[in-house]
Amino acid sequence: MRDFKIKKYIKKLDYSYAFGVFPTIELINSRPSNISKVLINPKIEKNLESRIKNLCNEKNIKYEFNLKHISKLAPKENTFCIGIFEKYKAEVEPNQNHVVLANPSDMGNVGTIIRSMIGFDFNNLVLIKPAVDIYDPKVVRSSMGSFFKINFSYFNSINEYKQKFPNQNLYSFFLDGNTYLKDTEFNNPISLIFGNEGAGLASEYKNISETIKINHSKNIESLNLANAVSISLYEAFKN
Amino acid sequence: MRDFKIKKYIKKLDYSYAFGVFPTIELINSRPSNISKVLINPKIEKNLESRIKNLCNEKNIKYEFNLKHISKLAPKENTFCIGIFEKYKAEVEPNQNHVVLANPSDMGNVGTIIRSMIGFDFNNLVLIKPAVDIYDPKVVRSSMGSFFKINFSYFNSINEYKQKFPNQNLYSFFLDGNTYLKDTEFNNPISLIFGNEGAGLASEYKNISETIKINHSKNIESLNLANAVSISLYEAFKN
Repeated sequence: MRDFKIKKYIKKLDYSYAFGVFPTIELINSRPSNISKVLINPKIEKNLESRIKNLCNEKNIKYEFNLKHISKLAPKENTFCIGIFEKYKAEVEPNQNHVVLANPSDMGNVGTIIRSMIGFDFNNLVLIKPAVDIYDPKVVRSSMGSFFKINFSYFNSINEYKQKFPNQNLYSFFLDGNTYLKDTEFNNPISLIFGNEGAGLASEYKNISETIKINHSKNIESLNLANAVSISLYEAFKN
Repeated sequence: MRDFKIKKYIKKLDYSYAFGVFPTIELINSRPSNISKVLINPKIEKNLESRIKNLCNEKNIKYEFNLKHISKLAPKENTFCIGIFEKYKAEVEPNQNHVVLANPSDMGNVGTIIRSMIGFDFNNLVLIKPAVDIYDPKVVRSSMGSFFKINFSYFNSINEYKQKFPNQNLYSFFLDGNTYLKDTEFNNPISLIFGNEGAGLASEYKNISETIKINHSKNIESLNLANAVSISLYEAFKN
């Protein structure tokens, strides 16, 4: 694996970073052949240091102690480890359960959604453009490394997605959906579809899918997107 | 209401800020007597401007257009409105359903938890110290203004809390809890208790409460705290 220049992440780079010990361990375990190098902060705890070094040796991955590089890259003071990895393709699979995010704009939300997806056995994420750059280290970090376990694909429109995956059963979330989440009987393969944090889904989605609402009080306009997705994944997983 | 000096928020101030149009509207509606002033960004959309001005006039609240003050305070470029408010007491009530957060450290998590609490009719939040400063504008902002609808109290320990509220039925969330969330029958008044983002709850909580686990796959260590709380609130609200 080639060396990459140590510079702050921007979208056009063909590599990205896993910040933090736990995300780096997930990277090593899930995508060892995509790692360029692991940077270790000399101030790391001894037992974590051994764990990372053993993992790297086992999988033949380069590591180095380099506080200068870590300080240059990491947004937080106490970043003890960074995994540098080459971007890879892991395309969404047919006839599996999918989460579809239309135009998500918050990287932290997308990261915690990925974490919940892996927690509830949804391993395929579809993003309808415009959408956040899923490789951004903020997404990887807030996924706690679950990022490395999902497949993901971008589409230009929901129709393009539907054409590619005609067998999916589509469930769209609206504040005024027809069925309460708790009463919904999901049929596999499921696609749970959610709109942008501020704007929600365009009404065209109502014509192509069943519409679902999460029962909550009138005292909020809506739930936070990541919380709404997590609740829905929890219900679908229970079924 | 007196004027406050426009300076970046720090914990020891006896006032704080609601950043953004929606949180400021919630502030005006829920706590009008605690507002010092509303700052409006001259670039605000006309219809939002009218909405804010009408609300302020109705409730006799001062407002001013002041981009300089907004730029000084707000972390984001597109902040169109800031509500300046005096800190107030709104103590947790007995014989109501509570959320108890032991040592939460992430302000965004606490804010979205508050938003979900209001969504699922839990209006009382207990924080066990050490814990984030709930008045921090980051908490207020990520609550989308639901902050102004909750009661909250800090305690030094869970025992201090138990002594003050002896009638609560305590449910603590552990990765190895005894009962699955989906099978739990909650009895009012409920206290849902969650630990710190990284460390979880100390084992002493097992001796004083029923313990609950959220069923999820083995492929994640745990859910994001705000997502776990939201799922639990959703289940308790459904009952």
